[in-house]
Amino acid sequence: MADKKNLLLLFDHPTEPVFMDKGKRVTVFDVPDSFLTDRYRPISNEVQSRVGDKVEQRVPVREISIPDLRIPMSLGRDEQFSLFLPKHRRIAGRLIDIFMNMRSVDDLQSVAVYARDRVNPGLDLPSFSQTFPDRFIDSQVIRKMREESFVVQPGSRMPITIPRDYTASDLDPEHRLWYFREDLGINLHHWHWHLVYPFEASARSIVTKDCRGELFYYIHQQVIARFNVERFSNNLARLLPFNNLSHPISEGYFPKMDSLVASRAWPPRFESTRLSDLNREADQLNVEIGDLERWRDRIYEAIHQGFVMDERGNRVPLDEATGIDTLGNMIESSILSPNRVLYGDLHNNGHTFISYAHDPTSKHLESFGVMGDVSTAMRDPVFYKWHSYIDRIFQEHKSRLPAYTENQLNYSGVSIAGIQVDTNGGRPNNLTTFWQKSDVDMSRGFDFLPRGNVFARFTHLQHLPFTYTISVNNDSGAQRFGYVRIFMAPKNDERGQPMLMRDQRSMMIELDKFVTSLNPGPNTIRRRSTESSVTIPFERTFRNLDANRPAAGTAEELEFNFCGCGWPNHMLVPKGLPEGLQCVLFIMVSNYENDRIDQQLVGRCSDAASYCGVRDRLYPDRQSMGFPFDRLPRSGVDRLVNFLTPNMSIVDVTIRHENRTVQRQN
Amino acid sequence: MADKKNLLLLFDHPTEPVFMDKGKRVTVFDVPDSFLTDRYRPISNEVQSRVGDKVEQRVPVREISIPDLRIPMSLGRDEQFSLFLPKHRRIAGRLIDIFMNMRSVDDLQSVAVYARDRVNPGLDLPSFSQTFPDRFIDSQVIRKMREESFVVQPGSRMPITIPRDYTASDLDPEHRLWYFREDLGINLHHWHWHLVYPFEASARSIVTKDCRGELFYYIHQQVIARFNVERFSNNLARLLPFNNLSHPISEGYFPKMDSLVASRAWPPRFESTRLSDLNREADQLNVEIGDLERWRDRIYEAIHQGFVMDERGNRVPLDEATGIDTLGNMIESSILSPNRVLYGDLHNNGHTFISYAHDPTSKHLESFGVMGDVSTAMRDPVFYKWHSYIDRIFQEHKSRLPAYTENQLNYSGVSIAGIQVDTNGGRPNNLTTFWQKSDVDMSRGFDFLPRGNVFARFTHLQHLPFTYTISVNNDSGAQRFGYVRIFMAPKNDERGQPMLMRDQRSMMIELDKFVTSLNPGPNTIRRRSTESSVTIPFERTFRNLDANRPAAGTAEELEFNFCGCGWPNHMLVPKGLPEGLQCVLFIMVSNYENDRIDQQLVGRCSDAASYCGVRDRLYPDRQSMGFPFDRLPRSGVDRLVNFLTPNMSIVDVTIRHENRTVQRQN
Repeated sequence: MADKKNLLLLFDHPTEPVFMDKGKRVTVFDVPDSFLTDRYRPISNEVQSRVGDKVEQRVPVREISIPDLRIPMSLGRDEQFSLFLPKHRRIAGRLIDIFMNMRSVDDLQSVAVYARDRVNPGLDLPSFSQTFPDRFIDSQVIRKMREESFVVQPGSRMPITIPRDYTASDLDPEHRLWYFREDLGINLHHWHWHLVYPFEASARSIVTKDCRGELFYYIHQQVIARFNVERFSNNLARLLPFNNLSHPISEGYFPKMDSLVASRAWPPRFESTRLSDLNREADQLNVEIGDLERWRDRIYEAIHQGFVMDERGNRVPLDEATGIDTLGNMIESSILSPNRVLYGDLHNNGHTFISYAHDPTSKHLESFGVMGDVSTAMRDPVFYKWHSYIDRIFQEHKSRLPAYTENQLNYSGVSIAGIQVDTNGGRPNNLTTFWQKSDVDMSRGFDFLPRGNVFARFTHLQHLPFTYTISVNNDSGAQRFGYVRIFMAPKNDERGQPMLMRDQRSMMIELDKFVTSLNPGPNTIRRRSTESSVTIPFERTFRNLDANRPAAGTAEELEFNFCGCGWPNHMLVPKGLPEGLQCVLFIMVSNYENDRIDQQLVGRCSDAASYCGVRDRLYPDRQSMGFPFDRLPRSGVDRLVNFLTPNMSIVDVTIRHENRTVQRQN
Repeated sequence: MADKKNLLLLFDHPTEPVFMDKGKRVTVFDVPDSFLTDRYRPISNEVQSRVGDKVEQRVPVREISIPDLRIPMSLGRDEQFSLFLPKHRRIAGRLIDIFMNMRSVDDLQSVAVYARDRVNPGLDLPSFSQTFPDRFIDSQVIRKMREESFVVQPGSRMPITIPRDYTASDLDPEHRLWYFREDLGINLHHWHWHLVYPFEASARSIVTKDCRGELFYYIHQQVIARFNVERFSNNLARLLPFNNLSHPISEGYFPKMDSLVASRAWPPRFESTRLSDLNREADQLNVEIGDLERWRDRIYEAIHQGFVMDERGNRVPLDEATGIDTLGNMIESSILSPNRVLYGDLHNNGHTFISYAHDPTSKHLESFGVMGDVSTAMRDPVFYKWHSYIDRIFQEHKSRLPAYTENQLNYSGVSIAGIQVDTNGGRPNNLTTFWQKSDVDMSRGFDFLPRGNVFARFTHLQHLPFTYTISVNNDSGAQRFGYVRIFMAPKNDERGQPMLMRDQRSMMIELDKFVTSLNPGPNTIRRRSTESSVTIPFERTFRNLDANRPAAGTAEELEFNFCGCGWPNHMLVPKGLPEGLQCVLFIMVSNYENDRIDQQLVGRCSDAASYCGVRDRLYPDRQSMGFPFDRLPRSGVDRLVNFLTPNMSIVDVTIRHENRTVQRQN
């Protein structure tokens, strides 16, 4: 019987023909001649023996009658694949159905081998930065890696450095954020998040995940909050949302990346480009700006009326319990939207409109820009302006919910006596960031080249690890459990004035959340920054997806995929300023009895649950995401300090950026 | 002593390191370790022995002390090189000076080997479509050729087809002209023309060529005339010039090509992009649109005053004899311009402004678009609108010259009795065009891949060869010589009305010009279309630049380069219409005694002199280029038929396009 693990080798060198050698242990699929494409069938003897002498493993492929692949093959091999396009989603869904319906692993292997050189490589989900390095790095670096692979033997190869900032110059103020927008880890995170939270699938159960709509709102709200703190770290004002859809988009973006699948460059967007109605026949796209505006206006109407109209004409309340989740599914939108005809597909279409602004009618046969793909969208400054607008709509709903009362916020008998943050040997309550260079192996994505590792060396933000020390008094006389919630936000606004609570809450970035046991009397809680519930370690962001990978199609493999979701730990702390960015660190110990979800957590990867949830389980918090900052403060609370109940505390923290670069030790 | 021919091998695989194998006969340069770049010096043993076992020839390279290459190396290896940029021109000039000053071929070889991996590959003049295929073909085709090279052994490789039209769809009316704008031969011709007529060099003698200014005017006037006839062949109206420099450029262009040197895509231009002032510090470009407008206005002023002011304040008349040549050098401009401070650099800067419209301040670190390079500029619709405007300025001068008198036009005693044009077996005075597929070897430009030919198969316009038969009476009683001038233009305008002479003359395309001997009495002259003085044969347009190439630096090599200049014969006849484009064919036999230039023609390549001149000789015609259509007709002549003197004749010719494709037989 076929070994399921061999199926993984089909992801190797995705645009090379299937009979080429694969894997570190040189493996060749013995492909029936009838499975070869027309180009290679007449010369099958020659090409199949081409790699003959170095083969270590041969995988027999059974000749079976191949199911109808016309729909999956209707997307050309060298077209760009986008999940934002309904037509492409239908094609992907059909391919998944075909694979799922094969009766044995042998048959699955046969049809996968057959399909591999015929359907679009982007359909080979899961894919990742190692298989498609072109989505993450500069085309000039790709060329240098190609040279290194061809000229130098594997043992002597050196990493090729990705320049620190290559997409624009300091004449563009937005370019100061390059290290965030173009961070490999952040873009991988975004791709992973959408991989584990698809908004469409043939089986509704794949989409229906606990709080998926709320999670969509929250992850993007946090991205905007983090981006705005990074802007303060670069002397830039907060984002202005892209809300006037007929106005020009002032920011230009030139990605300088090639798509290896399409052999075409990712198209740029010039400064001051306007959106246009989309009328692209080949993509079955026929949407006007007016559609977006109507959907948006109906969503606002639902928010202001307090209910949504579902497809059967019933009112679905937008209440404290499920309102934000319903809105999330409506606005994204996913197939869980209560009424896609009425509320449309606002967020996805925003991506599509922006990504086709350069060729809205396909007159010039151009594919979409980086905003059209989840693995590249976060590189573009307009991503943040668009999501800032999406967040504004969510906040309109949140602002209409009743404020949390002191009673809801307090934890009777529990109080925080003090907080301190320490880096090893540094001054208390001072965080330090700097630049780090790290190497990742990209060789699996380099097609038509001699084998062996090729490393890209890239520069990213890093911070000194730190520890929170929290002194908590438990005056209840019994053991209690608390949910420790840690946030951070800037102290002052763009003019240097102390921020108002209603502004500051929207810049609160979540740093950690964990359960703690409180003995009667004073307790000292220590927690390391590397344990954050928001992040995954550097090694997991850039892990080798071959090593220790469970067999394809198993539950363990789905979990393995899930493990890649999580904010990259190297981006936990905003950059700060050379002279220090003044921030406030907020810690709350809430009553775990009100927050707890009783469920069995299985597997290893529930450690980045704040932004990613837990696989196939409930979101591990009964409070709303972002609690206690997701709503406007109660009446009379203008400043954060007035918001505090005894189970909360704040401390001033300074983030200092040191403009030095260190090489990561492996 | 070093063999000069080995220097040619340095053009092989221009972006691979110098020690890699070169040439069909596997040749390796034995490079001194000190010449290797920093990347390869530490592993010199490994890399130099890498190709060891298959080497057929080793070329020793002498270690000499290397002259100062700082200026040539100031242009980065992976920056795009453009002759339109003054800074780049200075760099190229310095490198030529260094090479010219080496004392022996051995020393030249050493410095060339040393410089090869250090200076920009674009500086390795001469270069050509085989070395830089990326400038001529679709990036998707490049990818497929890469696959073919890597996967298939040389003997089994198949040509990769360049799609007929890939840059845009029929939604764009301008796209109907793809076969002209994107023709490999036309773009090679344009590159060759500018190679043999540089507008700047350290030695003034390289620029000072007979009539170079007039030739600049004429070649581009003919390109516009030809382009307009092609527009009539596609039911499109004549070009509107790009004369309002602050208006948006309505045409967009997406070249879909990568630069292999820069590993970056050629930037597109979106529809309705406007020019902006250029302020690109790195390129030492600081020019405003107002500069272009001032230069243009001063040029017009000179035309209307009838003289130019040179740098010493002297008046240079813009007369019949040299006015057009002076204007050509002024407008292009070349270093022969009488006053570059006053009249500036209009045409070159137009290219530069348009090519940087997407990033005028270098904010986004973008290189120039296709308009910035002579090998790619003719792909872009705006090339024709810009040159249409440049031509309008030249025509303003021409319209102020006195019309040719009947006496100047006539050839007393010589008259044309009849004209006929025949294709083999076709109806008289009917020309036929169709599509042809041809293969060209691109392997020398494919770096980092196994060796062997890789062919690109491209589709181009072609026509059935034809013969002119001209009956001429010589009533002078003695042997005479005539200069036979053949032109063609459409009969009717866009509304189907017969054209006025003053419009038709600007659409007259030159087909041939040759000397004939006329015996007393009736003469029958036969001339084949393949003998045209405008064109060079297909084989020479796409010749293999290795085979039969004279030694580098010799006079024979300069002549060899020159031989590549000439309109491609496959584009001699405009496409025509399926139902037939009605044209008028004009033939004039002028008095060779008035036209002749007495000079010894040496070498083989004076056969495309109409657009290219003759190397190091005078332009072989004393009449103005375009004679007799370069000036307005004499008073009272509204139609071509009234223009005719007895030594002229016209005949109606129909160009019929058959929409079929044939494969060229090699």
